[in-house]
Amino acid sequence: MKHNFGAGPGILPQEVFKQAAQAVIDFNGTGLSLLEISHRSKEFEAVLDEAVRLVKELFSVPEGYSVLFLQGGASTQFAMVPYNLLPEGGKAAYLESGVWANKALKEAKYFGEVAVVASSKQSNFTFIPKDFEIPADAAYFHITSNNTIYGTQLQQFFPSPVPVVCDMSSDIFSRKINVADFGLIYAGAQKNMGPAGVTLVIVKDEILGKTGRAIPSMLNYQTQIEGGSMYNTPPTFAIYVSMLTLNWVKAKGGVEAIEQENLAKSKALYAEIDRNPLFKGVAATEDRSHMNVCFVAENPEHEKPFLKLCDEKGIVGIKGHRSVGGFRASIYNALPITSVHVLIEAMQEFAEKNK
Amino acid sequence: MKHNFGAGPGILPQEVFKQAAQAVIDFNGTGLSLLEISHRSKEFEAVLDEAVRLVKELFSVPEGYSVLFLQGGASTQFAMVPYNLLPEGGKAAYLESGVWANKALKEAKYFGEVAVVASSKQSNFTFIPKDFEIPADAAYFHITSNNTIYGTQLQQFFPSPVPVVCDMSSDIFSRKINVADFGLIYAGAQKNMGPAGVTLVIVKDEILGKTGRAIPSMLNYQTQIEGGSMYNTPPTFAIYVSMLTLNWVKAKGGVEAIEQENLAKSKALYAEIDRNPLFKGVAATEDRSHMNVCFVAENPEHEKPFLKLCDEKGIVGIKGHRSVGGFRASIYNALPITSVHVLIEAMQEFAEKNK
Repeated sequence: MKHNFGAGPGILPQEVFKQAAQAVIDFNGTGLSLLEISHRSKEFEAVLDEAVRLVKELFSVPEGYSVLFLQGGASTQFAMVPYNLLPEGGKAAYLESGVWANKALKEAKYFGEVAVVASSKQSNFTFIPKDFEIPADAAYFHITSNNTIYGTQLQQFFPSPVPVVCDMSSDIFSRKINVADFGLIYAGAQKNMGPAGVTLVIVKDEILGKTGRAIPSMLNYQTQIEGGSMYNTPPTFAIYVSMLTLNWVKAKGGVEAIEQENLAKSKALYAEIDRNPLFKGVAATEDRSHMNVCFVAENPEHEKPFLKLCDEKGIVGIKGHRSVGGFRASIYNALPITSVHVLIEAMQEFAEKNK
Repeated sequence: MKHNFGAGPGILPQEVFKQAAQAVIDFNGTGLSLLEISHRSKEFEAVLDEAVRLVKELFSVPEGYSVLFLQGGASTQFAMVPYNLLPEGGKAAYLESGVWANKALKEAKYFGEVAVVASSKQSNFTFIPKDFEIPADAAYFHITSNNTIYGTQLQQFFPSPVPVVCDMSSDIFSRKINVADFGLIYAGAQKNMGPAGVTLVIVKDEILGKTGRAIPSMLNYQTQIEGGSMYNTPPTFAIYVSMLTLNWVKAKGGVEAIEQENLAKSKALYAEIDRNPLFKGVAATEDRSHMNVCFVAENPEHEKPFLKLCDEKGIVGIKGHRSVGGFRASIYNALPITSVHVLIEAMQEFAEKNK
């Protein structure tokens, strides 16, 4: 039995894997694999419709928003967002809270002026800046809700005079959000929502079409909305697995219930980190992520033996990102609290051995 | 037993489905699903390396070319090609041999001037124009090797004074090609190479970096080359299934052996179409595709009953595209010749009944 704490592509529910494997052999009794059926078949259209419906239901998406399943990952959104929202000669505001935010703002520079409202780069992104002003003449304000590498997460969103664009790749569907607070939300699926290869976009229709730019079809949200995410052949398998995962979230009691479980998991793990004399947390306490728990050994020589102990216990994917070091326990939606307990016990056992 | 003649996403080998389903449950004995492992794990890196290696081996890709696995389908390539290859104020040449060629040239117009060297639009693309000149001052010459909707296929490629860019989405790996004849080849995987959600690009390195354009990272071939198709999280499952399918092609004896099988399949089917008084081919004889065999009933009233007979025999996906009507038998690499025989027998049975 493996306990998968990997940062992504990350753990999905075991029952989703079983259903997905079955669909690869025979999809819904059609006698055909999901991989060989037309995206225009009524069977696949039902999958896409259901995935969109579940996103709307789980997040109570209000009228006036479109839900899209696209390709290219969040990195493609880094370019699509300014392509669609930033007018020639216009300005966009970015909060630099990590490497991914930095990559996003670099792409925006291909399209216009970028105002970095605040940055925690000097402290290696261990906290999320909170004291800044959002320029009222910006086309939009871009934030990253959760920073996987550093283990920080926005505990609440900032009021903004301009549309908020949020990269939620690493905490989408992990907690309740108010979609009406956002102009555009995007998320690569491969952490909490599905496998790699599909990207969710939730966009407020009225913010589109205002730049006067000519936008190539595939990069134009409007084309994708009009095509119902099928302007071209969509990534059918990745959408199917996302639909299964969203259904699982619903069956668990929805985002509110998942959020409570996630809080219980992170609370238990942070309590152990704070209690255990051999380890310490990396992120500022008030910004601690409920998705990626980053910590280091007080004594760097303890790193390797602790990783070895983890390996023996079936704990995988716990090595920290190279830019931070130490350990990173990603505790996404599908990771059971029992796995967190196994990790906590390993930390306790390690502390006993190294008293 | 189903005989899948669908145009795409299309049939893949049964053993590929079995291996893919197994990997969704437990990937290579890791105790983890392929869907939950890091793209940076040594296990997945081996998959991507093997997929690239197989492309190079099967097509004898010469030195100086890069092989990429990207997202976004051929439709994203319609924009990436001119973004990367067409200088400001420059011109690109396009052969308009079908709706997909038309879509490709429309995207190029976002980036510069487009010279349509020839078009068969007036005759609903039933043939491929051959009498034209390629302007020597064009940045590149774009062609579509096989036109799924109309059942036409380039039997030989045109000599060109400028780099040839070819959309091979519907016949990639179905026949031998000489990669050195091309500047860039691209193909959505979902017909002959894998599932929907991944796109193969083979590009001659020296044609890149000449436009002076600033290109957003994800749309820049150079970024993708430097990142080894992992500038961001790649579509891991789609790449894995493509690797399995390429391995299957190799085990069959390579592209040459597959090409002989494909010729045997198309020859048998066209022979029946030409012999059977109830049906007739759609495409110009000399341009007939070995991938998508398009035909119609001489008597339009025979359409529905023939589709019903096909349904009874497990023949699926044979309805023609709405713009052409009639029937389209897609006989991709993985479709066994036994399925073609089932279709031929259905045509013969239908002719007997309707004498």
